[in-house]
Amino acid sequence: MKKQALILFAHGARAASWAEPFLRLQKLTQESSPELKVELAFLELMQPQLPEVVKNLVDQSYESITITPIFLGQGGHLIRDLPLMVEEIRQQYPNLQIKQVAAAGEDAGVLHAIRDYCLRSMNP
Amino acid sequence: MKKQALILFAHGARAASWAEPFLRLQKLTQESSPELKVELAFLELMQPQLPEVVKNLVDQSYESITITPIFLGQGGHLIRDLPLMVEEIRQQYPNLQIKQVAAAGEDAGVLHAIRDYCLRSMNP
Repeated sequence: MKKQALILFAHGARAASWAEPFLRLQKLTQESSPELKVELAFLELMQPQLPEVVKNLVDQSYESITITPIFLGQGGHLIRDLPLMVEEIRQQYPNLQIKQVAAAGEDAGVLHAIRDYCLRSMNP
Repeated sequence: MKKQALILFAHGARAASWAEPFLRLQKLTQESSPELKVELAFLELMQPQLPEVVKNLVDQSYESITITPIFLGQGGHLIRDLPLMVEEIRQQYPNLQIKQVAAAGEDAGVLHAIRDYCLRSMNP
């Protein structure tokens, strides 16, 4: 069976506090799926960034990578920037299976959870 | 009882596709809570923006507004920009009750739903 990794791909920001939910998400996901390697990679402004994370996974003999954008909406970063980065990775590592899936915010379960949070936030 | 409104506050982007999950979220939230007015407001690049949405609510006699940031992380926009906007709104409408709550991505229920999506995205 191929060694599989999941990369949580997030935007990044100048404020260090911005990374906290993503670090919690990485921990939660890793704990739920100990057999899977779960990494966090940023597009910009924060480290580590995607090319470095992929290189490390390839160096550790991971053969199949899913990149899951932890973005709410599908804007220019996911429509243009990420596919270009994935194409570069494909050219660099032709034997690596690499899959880019839809933004987390496109998922009905995620939207329902945000809806529940919004309604709770009215009356804490 | 005061007329209450909930504003889902999102970033905005150039790509029109970016707004879709937020529009679905607004619809979902409004359907779950028909007695509440649920509005969507953007920080930048998309319309309507926060000052206009608040003005319309005040014009419709809403007296209490909760602003819930539909952001994953707490970066400069939520640490600096939004509190400044809320302060301006407070000065402009001193009788309006206005509350800014934490980013949706800080909520454990939201993070668990994203974790579930990530794990499903590996094996669709």
